[in-house]
Amino acid sequence: MQFELTREFIDHLEDAIERGDNAFIQEYLSEMHCADITAIFSELSLKNSRYIYNLLDGELKAEVISEIDEDDRLKYLKEATPQGLSELIEFIETDDAADILNALPLKIRQETIALLNDKEKATHILDLLRYDEDTAGGLMAKELIKANHNWTVVQTIEEIRRQASKVEKIFSIYVVDDNDILLGRVSLKKLVLASDDTKVSDLYEEDLVYVESFAPDEEVTQKMSRYDLTAIPVVNFQGKLLGRITIDDVVDVITEQAETDRQLMTGISENVEFRDSIWAITRARLPWLIVGMAGGLLGAKLIGFFEKDLIAVPAMAFFIPLITATGGNVGIQSSSIVIQSLATSTSLEDEVLARLWKSFLVSFLNALAIATLVFSFNVIFLGFSMATVVGISIFSVVILASFTGTVIPFVLNKFDINPALAAGPFITTFNDLVGIAVYFTVAQMLI
Amino acid sequence: MQFELTREFIDHLEDAIERGDNAFIQEYLSEMHCADITAIFSELSLKNSRYIYNLLDGELKAEVISEIDEDDRLKYLKEATPQGLSELIEFIETDDAADILNALPLKIRQETIALLNDKEKATHILDLLRYDEDTAGGLMAKELIKANHNWTVVQTIEEIRRQASKVEKIFSIYVVDDNDILLGRVSLKKLVLASDDTKVSDLYEEDLVYVESFAPDEEVTQKMSRYDLTAIPVVNFQGKLLGRITIDDVVDVITEQAETDRQLMTGISENVEFRDSIWAITRARLPWLIVGMAGGLLGAKLIGFFEKDLIAVPAMAFFIPLITATGGNVGIQSSSIVIQSLATSTSLEDEVLARLWKSFLVSFLNALAIATLVFSFNVIFLGFSMATVVGISIFSVVILASFTGTVIPFVLNKFDINPALAAGPFITTFNDLVGIAVYFTVAQMLI
Repeated sequence: MQFELTREFIDHLEDAIERGDNAFIQEYLSEMHCADITAIFSELSLKNSRYIYNLLDGELKAEVISEIDEDDRLKYLKEATPQGLSELIEFIETDDAADILNALPLKIRQETIALLNDKEKATHILDLLRYDEDTAGGLMAKELIKANHNWTVVQTIEEIRRQASKVEKIFSIYVVDDNDILLGRVSLKKLVLASDDTKVSDLYEEDLVYVESFAPDEEVTQKMSRYDLTAIPVVNFQGKLLGRITIDDVVDVITEQAETDRQLMTGISENVEFRDSIWAITRARLPWLIVGMAGGLLGAKLIGFFEKDLIAVPAMAFFIPLITATGGNVGIQSSSIVIQSLATSTSLEDEVLARLWKSFLVSFLNALAIATLVFSFNVIFLGFSMATVVGISIFSVVILASFTGTVIPFVLNKFDINPALAAGPFITTFNDLVGIAVYFTVAQMLI
Repeated sequence: MQFELTREFIDHLEDAIERGDNAFIQEYLSEMHCADITAIFSELSLKNSRYIYNLLDGELKAEVISEIDEDDRLKYLKEATPQGLSELIEFIETDDAADILNALPLKIRQETIALLNDKEKATHILDLLRYDEDTAGGLMAKELIKANHNWTVVQTIEEIRRQASKVEKIFSIYVVDDNDILLGRVSLKKLVLASDDTKVSDLYEEDLVYVESFAPDEEVTQKMSRYDLTAIPVVNFQGKLLGRITIDDVVDVITEQAETDRQLMTGISENVEFRDSIWAITRARLPWLIVGMAGGLLGAKLIGFFEKDLIAVPAMAFFIPLITATGGNVGIQSSSIVIQSLATSTSLEDEVLARLWKSFLVSFLNALAIATLVFSFNVIFLGFSMATVVGISIFSVVILASFTGTVIPFVLNKFDINPALAAGPFITTFNDLVGIAVYFTVAQMLI
């Protein structure tokens, strides 16, 4: 019942594929959850996965193809005919159907939609294909249950029985007026508990959170997690009910957003996983390494300007890593806190100056603490003059790095660039250069 | 209907509080969603927030206190009497009730539970208080709807009407045998669509994903997002149904996990936000800055050992930032990829050696590319000997940093420490030192 993927199971399956023992394979897999089947696929060769995929019956096949990573779908679908695809799509809800069709060549997409038996579904899918993937419209499904506010409970339950065959999970029943304008919602629980001739207009709740179809997906995730919603209705600018987004899709979006942020922050430029090819991982990592390298070479050039000072006081070189590392750490901390406040902000936009001032105070305290520690340590081992140079430099570097770490995410956010980029190698490289310049300039002035 | 927080609204509210115009405040807030009220609280002084909190009627008060950050709850509850608390708890589901009571002093907690009118609820809450916060038992609520497999649809719907008053959202009806052993589930939709005398045993689905009460919360989030569940039943080791966890609680856990990871990766040691006090933010940032500083001072000591070489070839100092920055970047990239594979792993545990080998191949390609670029650049500007030293060093640093970045998260994970720690300042500091040692050793051997 709780499936556990084991090496033995994979070996058995591979044997069965080799023997062509389709009965065995079908018997085993027909009882499984689609998520477990895709986990099995990731352990098999593509050839074997496709062999198994083609053995699955229609409904399970549809679930599996909806579950498979978007990047991998085409590998399973490239030999599918429009006829086969349209049969598959009959089992799939409109949101996933639109995603799948989006990945196919235009001609095949059109033929597939034309072949759908369910003409209403065909219209729905065509409608969904118009929306950008990362908007509310791109996330919504057309399947939902709605009730006119004038209906009675009996009428509504009758209608639900009719509509429910197409809807996998009900969550809420949306209440609309005669023009399909969204008025509110009523839970199935409330309907079941109410007496038969109660009118829907007496039952429904008005305090309804909705989202407009062109709203970005971040707005959807924010509203759903803020108001603890399991489904959110999508409306057009007139308030007409267009579709709904369910929580399972939103969980995926939240996970992806966190993943994207992490990759940006750690200097990985494409969406890669450990199991991707060596070449793909290398390609995702190299760009930021090269940026860092260019920064390092620039840093070398910068230190080169101060070669005379270095010859005069070789101990200057000792503290280069301390300066650059501190700048990097402070910059990343500052941007991390700003990024979080940008991502979860439900509060009023404080004035930018007030925020900078607060950041400055925090960095001042940090700078004071670190500089004092470093100065005390160095004054014992290296004497007053060197200790002063390093102390003043580290103080300045903390203040400057904190400033860039606070400002850059704001600026990126203003230009609609993911601010998480600012907590990555970009800011570290930048702060390295700032740190070096400050350090040697201070030294030149004081020694 | 869609509430938007504005400065004007806050000003109005503050005026009303000053005037003591309770009627105005109650009229405005009684229609609001609890999440909007807590957003308002974050813009008001604590004194004003508490003033408003105390004006809310019982049910809304209960929603608001459940919604408020755990850290802030006590500020609102510290003057509450056990009598007041028990009245509040009557409105709150058992999972949130247990969380709230957990924060209170033992004596008040016990008195409150003793005063509850609903004795079944009191038992449930006492039961939940036994579980650790970050286990399935700590997340579950006792409120759920269950049906005996021998019941008919009519009987079941009758029972649902009885049970439903205590359950906010139904999701699924869990099917149990006479000993409360979980057998499967049936959706309300399926019950509504079935004929009255169908037996539950003919309707329910067996392919049920559940979780044991002592399972860690990561297992809960993984299962729920993997199988797209809106609720998951919690059982004891015998398979007896104990409670259920709903998706809204899990979304919070997922968001918190991502947040914790980000803070670890960016060197912030406590859960702070931009709006926290300057002192709190400083305290959260200083520990890792001091670790970085200690690393930097160690680095200074290390470079000090090579002072003679530096005096002989001052250009050695130029490339210190390049070496340390590259080591840091590579280490963070490597650990990021490993951390992700540890977090989302549904695949078979490959042997550790195979993983290390793959990591090695990736780092070899990266090292080759970066070292070649750096060598070519330097050979033009600095001559062959210096270019060779820097080239070989950077090659070794990439390989070594990639090794530590891959191994450390694995080791941390084995000891049940969050591997995200490895992508933070810790690994950067460590790799700085390794890089410096390698660079100067190579130089000593070749120059």
